[in-house]
Amino acid sequence: MTAIMKSFASDNNSGVHPLIMKALAAANAGHALAYGQDSLTERALARFKDIFGQEAEAFFVFLGTAANVLSLKALLKPHQAAICAASAHINRDECGAPESIAGCKLLPVQTEDGKLTVEAVRPFLGDLGFEHHSQPACLSITQSTELGTLYTPEEIRTLADFAHENGLRLHMDGSRLANAAAALGVDLAALSVEAGVDVLSFGGAKNGMMFGEAVVFFEPDLAKDFKYIRKQGMQLASKMRFLAAQFEALLDDELWRKNASAANQAAAMLAKTIKDIPGVRITRPVSVNAVFAEIPPRTVEALRREYFFYIWDQTRTEARFMTSFDTSEEDVAGFAAALRQASKTPQTPSANKKPRGKNS
Amino acid sequence: MTAIMKSFASDNNSGVHPLIMKALAAANAGHALAYGQDSLTERALARFKDIFGQEAEAFFVFLGTAANVLSLKALLKPHQAAICAASAHINRDECGAPESIAGCKLLPVQTEDGKLTVEAVRPFLGDLGFEHHSQPACLSITQSTELGTLYTPEEIRTLADFAHENGLRLHMDGSRLANAAAALGVDLAALSVEAGVDVLSFGGAKNGMMFGEAVVFFEPDLAKDFKYIRKQGMQLASKMRFLAAQFEALLDDELWRKNASAANQAAAMLAKTIKDIPGVRITRPVSVNAVFAEIPPRTVEALRREYFFYIWDQTRTEARFMTSFDTSEEDVAGFAAALRQASKTPQTPSANKKPRGKNS
Amino acid sequence: MTAIMKSFASDNNSGVHPLIMKALAAANAGHALAYGQDSLTERALARFKDIFGQEAEAFFVFLGTAANVLSLKALLKPHQAAICAASAHINRDECGAPESIAGCKLLPVQTEDGKLTVEAVRPFLGDLGFEHHSQPACLSITQSTELGTLYTPEEIRTLADFAHENGLRLHMDGSRLANAAAALGVDLAALSVEAGVDVLSFGGAKNGMMFGEAVVFFEPDLAKDFKYIRKQGMQLASKMRFLAAQFEALLDDELWRKNASAANQAAAMLAKTIKDIPGVRITRPVSVNAVFAEIPPRTVEALRREYFFYIWDQTRTEARFMTSFDTSEEDVAGFAAALRQASKTPQTPSANKKPRGKNS
Amino acid sequence: MTAIMKSFASDNNSGVHPLIMKALAAANAGHALAYGQDSLTERALARFKDIFGQEAEAFFVFLGTAANVLSLKALLKPHQAAICAASAHINRDECGAPESIAGCKLLPVQTEDGKLTVEAVRPFLGDLGFEHHSQPACLSITQSTELGTLYTPEEIRTLADFAHENGLRLHMDGSRLANAAAALGVDLAALSVEAGVDVLSFGGAKNGMMFGEAVVFFEPDLAKDFKYIRKQGMQLASKMRFLAAQFEALLDDELWRKNASAANQAAAMLAKTIKDIPGVRITRPVSVNAVFAEIPPRTVEALRREYFFYIWDQTRTEARFMTSFDTSEEDVAGFAAALRQASKTPQTPSANKKPRGKNS
Repeated sequence: MTAIMKSFASDNNSGVHPLIMKALAAANAGHALAYGQDSLTERALARFKDIFGQEAEAFFVFLGTAANVLSLKALLKPHQAAICAASAHINRDECGAPESIAGCKLLPVQTEDGKLTVEAVRPFLGDLGFEHHSQPACLSITQSTELGTLYTPEEIRTLADFAHENGLRLHMDGSRLANAAAALGVDLAALSVEAGVDVLSFGGAKNGMMFGEAVVFFEPDLAKDFKYIRKQGMQLASKMRFLAAQFEALLDDELWRKNASAANQAAAMLAKTIKDIPGVRITRPVSVNAVFAEIPPRTVEALRREYFFYIWDQTRTEARFMTSFDTSEEDVAGFAAALRQASKTPQTPSANKKPRGKNS
Repeated sequence: MTAIMKSFASDNNSGVHPLIMKALAAANAGHALAYGQDSLTERALARFKDIFGQEAEAFFVFLGTAANVLSLKALLKPHQAAICAASAHINRDECGAPESIAGCKLLPVQTEDGKLTVEAVRPFLGDLGFEHHSQPACLSITQSTELGTLYTPEEIRTLADFAHENGLRLHMDGSRLANAAAALGVDLAALSVEAGVDVLSFGGAKNGMMFGEAVVFFEPDLAKDFKYIRKQGMQLASKMRFLAAQFEALLDDELWRKNASAANQAAAMLAKTIKDIPGVRITRPVSVNAVFAEIPPRTVEALRREYFFYIWDQTRTEARFMTSFDTSEEDVAGFAAALRQASKTPQTPSANKKPRGKNS
Repeated sequence: MTAIMKSFASDNNSGVHPLIMKALAAANAGHALAYGQDSLTERALARFKDIFGQEAEAFFVFLGTAANVLSLKALLKPHQAAICAASAHINRDECGAPESIAGCKLLPVQTEDGKLTVEAVRPFLGDLGFEHHSQPACLSITQSTELGTLYTPEEIRTLADFAHENGLRLHMDGSRLANAAAALGVDLAALSVEAGVDVLSFGGAKNGMMFGEAVVFFEPDLAKDFKYIRKQGMQLASKMRFLAAQFEALLDDELWRKNASAANQAAAMLAKTIKDIPGVRITRPVSVNAVFAEIPPRTVEALRREYFFYIWDQTRTEARFMTSFDTSEEDVAGFAAALRQASKTPQTPSANKKPRGKNS
Repeated sequence: MTAIMKSFASDNNSGVHPLIMKALAAANAGHALAYGQDSLTERALARFKDIFGQEAEAFFVFLGTAANVLSLKALLKPHQAAICAASAHINRDECGAPESIAGCKLLPVQTEDGKLTVEAVRPFLGDLGFEHHSQPACLSITQSTELGTLYTPEEIRTLADFAHENGLRLHMDGSRLANAAAALGVDLAALSVEAGVDVLSFGGAKNGMMFGEAVVFFEPDLAKDFKYIRKQGMQLASKMRFLAAQFEALLDDELWRKNASAANQAAAMLAKTIKDIPGVRITRPVSVNAVFAEIPPRTVEALRREYFFYIWDQTRTEARFMTSFDTSEEDVAGFAAALRQASKTPQTPSANKKPRGKNS
């Protein structure tokens, strides 16, 4: 009833992984101190230290927007700015929350592939010390990016070194860090703390959790005000144990990697299956769980009758198809068949109306 | 393991009601559109219209701080102010979120019982039109109040009429509205829309939900920007169905009333059981699920070894004991026995150190 | 034409002292670098170091609201709070600017005389470290206060020591610091840097300048972001030399003290002259340039035909009469005569309508 | 001493026009009600109605940053956005004040000439109604632009119609509107209210005033909260008459046009005089009082010994030279001679170090 067919719109259209549902049920035993003073939260936080090092200080929040915006609030004063890709979620898809809640400015960098580089960032540092301009104080990168691309550990390290040499911090929006780590075959730490990242938004909801994201500081000093920032930022859960239980389950036996790998593999299969459909052209490398493809405009309406998905770039009918931890081979086959079928539809005037932007 | 003995610290130390856990599990079937575009959310929102009238527009958010602060943001411009009791949660327990996130000022009114009255509010309206002063534009009341007191429907109506005659709006922090309705034996609408309230924060987490609160606008015009305010306010859940499912279960067969009644009755029983313990004095009428009582200072440390609770007023060792939907007769009896036992402890110098304020 | 009779409404109804007008004219010679890079600004800033010590870093802004609010912004993070008297200008007369612009909360203390004391402030520190509450991080006092009272150097030192012992800073709203120093016969430094104040808003416009206020930090570290805070706070004057020239003239030969003394003496004379008018009662000690007096309600309308002034407390028709650097003996005599005459007016029903609050 | 040689850095390096100094002196007669309740302010505001129509509501503020940012605050809610040229002062030179003070987002448009067009703006409207994205609610254009270009009345009308058809407002940063009107030979109204502008920042300080800017609303409804926005925005002058007197003088006998014409003519003369200096290339049309020119890198250091100016684009040593109301033929001749002389300097390694951006 609530359920629809598997969606290829976003990985947040999926439900909750059974092991995480089980953990939620188990956590529901009697009373526990509120606001994170409970033993389950203590245990889950310790798991973050196991993974990211003993200096790592994690804080659970409800959602990715909050993880990103409050990370920026912890790093930036209002007269400071974060440099990010123009396509970054914080720039395009937070309805101005960084500006309104953190009070800071974003300095968007035009990119081809959603990735910052030292060359692209350097010109923004010319204003350091000049009071008329917002002062760049952090770089924010997304891993994997909104365009389905990846930073290698070396690329992250290069950006981190450049940032630190110039007195800036490096923030990583890791709402899909698990997908990146799975794709690259490395640990979560290798892409974050070990590569020089200062603050990480670590995603849960797109990888099988019901809700929840963690802000992880890799330098204790950066975390010292965060309990207040989280509370004032309207993200301090009273029944914290239900956030903690989910994270614990996600980290247990690398469930995060299993989920992310499954999603990545489904995307690879999808790309392979649809790439020879007439009029379909895969437009970007398929590295994680997103497939970007130009599709015939006439297919949009027909396909939408069965599946919801987003058109990323309307000017060329470039769709973004995303897979989830629970996207099965059958789901992929069914979707590919529907696209193939739709590609045979004759074009009609109304076939391509308002397929609007993405939503994360 | 996570579980501790029943807590008397706050109703948010409780877990999740079994019917709500069941609803969560049922909602976890396949994929659903994100951000509230799913059928379960549609259905739950319709339930709010059934209860509060067809003009009611409800929006789910993660927690009470957000429900209150974003309600104020919807009602107030930054040069405007909300008048509230000095003891109100928005004034004391949101770490400055109304000021920082909504940008507005709070005008705190000193009260004995946590309740606003026309007489107490009127002097604050003398500044209307005077640009040097924040302009009062809404009253915010809590039902039931932070001091365990209640507004009758008539009292709410009187405040609403006064507010409206002066061009102000009436906001209700109803994180414990269910407890009030259960205590007064009336419907939720009778205490809100029918009594002239304009915007309601309707609580879930303190009454058996895992997380979640609803902002309910009773005039569609007030709601028109709220989808943006919620998104920018970092409260737009991607997997919205899991908020919707909980609310649907809470509203089904008036589960909200059953839960609230159980908590209220446990408090009544607790008050009755402890009131004749030597040195214990019930300090406020027990109308809902809070018992305020002066206790012998020497009991605090001993009792804390087994139970967590808050000292409301340290100057006279006034404790606040709160009961929950799942507080049983045995829990009450056990707690009362522990308090009785502790009251026999001889006083020691260290017995009364820093029992800090409440946390909701 | 613009001129009206001498006003007793506020010291900002006065014009500009002739020596300051002369300094403005002299500063208008040719071109000068903008934004404070000019030699006149450099010279004026050096004067502040002469007066307040070599560590003092002064920044000119346009007005007192900005000096106060941006001082708070420099001292406080949004999750922090300033403790101030409920009657403080920052709490009552900035239209919520501290909350909206600095994003912080004010914790108002009820006082009789507008002065903070350690006893009154101490209870607000109970919440340090508790994330649900705004964290007190500074005390803000006004010298002389909005009620015409004074802090002695020792009283300031006591508050400063208490603040510093508790990790707080001490801010002084010194929009009338000159009047205080003149009244106490001490230097500006004795009431600020030497008494432990961390940041001072030093007033100009109420003491003979056309516009302008200085924010003075007594610890260089506190000043390090202020050039950005001032620019973002919309207070960086392009033609800064015209602020500098006024301050230079005000500091030359202690013009500030001469102006303030003249105003103080006029107030003393006014109090003496009116105190025996029937129905008039001086309600507060006259220490600086404000006279608070209950006057017969029937006199208000009659007196207002000739003079503008504010009713401070309508419930008892307590007026505030303020004198300026240029209030002459004749002005005082004339005003006193008018009040005496008005006191003979028979009472009429409309005689006391809407005499609204103060405006600084 | 304060005076330096005529600067070609910015028109705000100039002093105050003698007629304006005279008006300031005349305004300094006795007392006047504060905060704009005086007759001089009333008279000056009436002058704005004479010029811009009886519906025009003007408000004086201290500086251009405030005029722009508070205009945006009046037009936008925090979830809304202003579309502007990437080169706009509000985007580049306010240290993030629009974001921090108005809480809104800016959507920068890349342009060649600093001018918005319907074609460039249209793609930004695709997100209207989509809650994940900041909602465009106004266009902000600068007249004359930061690049010295002009909008014709027809171009403004086209943008205004487009904005209004899409539910947006049109804001004009007119800090140099006088220069534009003088160059185009039209009235101030023809470029603003008559062309469809909704809110105008009208500049004074760059055209001969000591300080001051006016925010002019052309629809009374838009102005209704502005008295609060100005006060909270720390821009309500106590001695308002000194702002009013300057504006009155500037508007008298079109002093604004005389001043602006003088500056424009000086720029034209400068361009003509330097354009054949070897290595100098005028890079943009000289329409108002700015001359953009590539100059030999080796000339920068030598020329800076005598004159201050800004390098606009370091990559090609493009300088911006600005003239003022008081730039004389001799000043131009002297500057041109210095540039010519400098162009003969042999290049040295240190000759071109960090000539930083513009500052208005």
